[in-house]
Amino acid sequence: MKKESKIPEASIERIALYSRPLEKLLESRSFVISSEKLAQLCKVNPAQVRKDLSYFGEFGVRGIGYDVTDLLRAIRKILGSDREWRLALLGAGNMGQALIRHEEFLKRGYRFVAVFDSSHGKIGKTLSSTSLVIQPMSMLGLLVESLEIEVGLIATPPSEAQHTADRLVEAGVKAILNFSPIQLRQPDNILVENVDFTVNLDNLAYFLKERL
Amino acid sequence: MKKESKIPEASIERIALYSRPLEKLLESRSFVISSEKLAQLCKVNPAQVRKDLSYFGEFGVRGIGYDVTDLLRAIRKILGSDREWRLALLGAGNMGQALIRHEEFLKRGYRFVAVFDSSHGKIGKTLSSTSLVIQPMSMLGLLVESLEIEVGLIATPPSEAQHTADRLVEAGVKAILNFSPIQLRQPDNILVENVDFTVNLDNLAYFLKERL
Repeated sequence: MKKESKIPEASIERIALYSRPLEKLLESRSFVISSEKLAQLCKVNPAQVRKDLSYFGEFGVRGIGYDVTDLLRAIRKILGSDREWRLALLGAGNMGQALIRHEEFLKRGYRFVAVFDSSHGKIGKTLSSTSLVIQPMSMLGLLVESLEIEVGLIATPPSEAQHTADRLVEAGVKAILNFSPIQLRQPDNILVENVDFTVNLDNLAYFLKERL
Repeated sequence: MKKESKIPEASIERIALYSRPLEKLLESRSFVISSEKLAQLCKVNPAQVRKDLSYFGEFGVRGIGYDVTDLLRAIRKILGSDREWRLALLGAGNMGQALIRHEEFLKRGYRFVAVFDSSHGKIGKTLSSTSLVIQPMSMLGLLVESLEIEVGLIATPPSEAQHTADRLVEAGVKAILNFSPIQLRQPDNILVENVDFTVNLDNLAYFLKERL
């Protein structure tokens, strides 16, 4: 696995993006795609697509393109999305509830197995349209172990996010997806991804401004 | 503006990302940053940072780094985030409510000026912790014009997303931020950005898998 560990993080991010149009292609029964077309769908340049995919071996056939089924299978294997990952949701407010009901997670192998909240009014209630009972934060350590939780999604108010991250780390969770707008401090061996919707708005604003 | 229109979209996306650590630096009263350090904070390579910023002119001083205040001001100007943008929220469910209360939008100059929903049970109610009254979809055309709405955020159920996008386009909105998991069809002159949280999870899964 030595080779893979040198792959730049930005390539990994783009490779995850590449899988989205490939899925749509399969749904519409298109089985071959050129690097030019894939690049266009993903808004990157074709040389970048070819380079990113070359980190993982030879997928394309020169002059023909990529086999969509093979490429998608390979991408899922590379990313680890060919297996199921077990998630905990931290914070059962509006954002948390929207996430847990979002169809894409399960479709991509991300299964919520527990939900936690610090509010006494919520603890013990079943989250609607799921079978999950909202747990107190004090149960985190026990449930991370017994349910083999691998990733924690923080959707608490910003004021509770750091404390929640600390408790996730104590409980043995190694990866955090952070929806709160604060910058988390965590030990170096903990993986954190921040979700920032306003970056997408900045992109729109730029292109809108260009047209005014 | 001819030069700017050739800037690759991926550079624009990264430039929006660069502004986030720069803000944190200012808050902690650090006024100079090297391209190496900025690259590290943003998880890209230093040559990429220098190239992206070079599209917009000369910011750095060789051997010293970038002036954080100047760079941030320039980035905001480039992106159009030095002005206010007026948003409409489409769909007042959990996701919509989480978005409208998210502090980052207003902090970055994105102001929600109207909210729409198709549910009779919601129309006419004031959205809690805002002063916005939920409007019926039939008011879209009128309010887009009178409130000068520039961007529509789609947070409806997936089954309503395409119809909602069509109505936004009819009403004259030129840019859409789509939180629904469906691929929208829209005229070529309409800008669409899709928000896909599962890409972030794919990144985490990849690096977790590498460590197992």
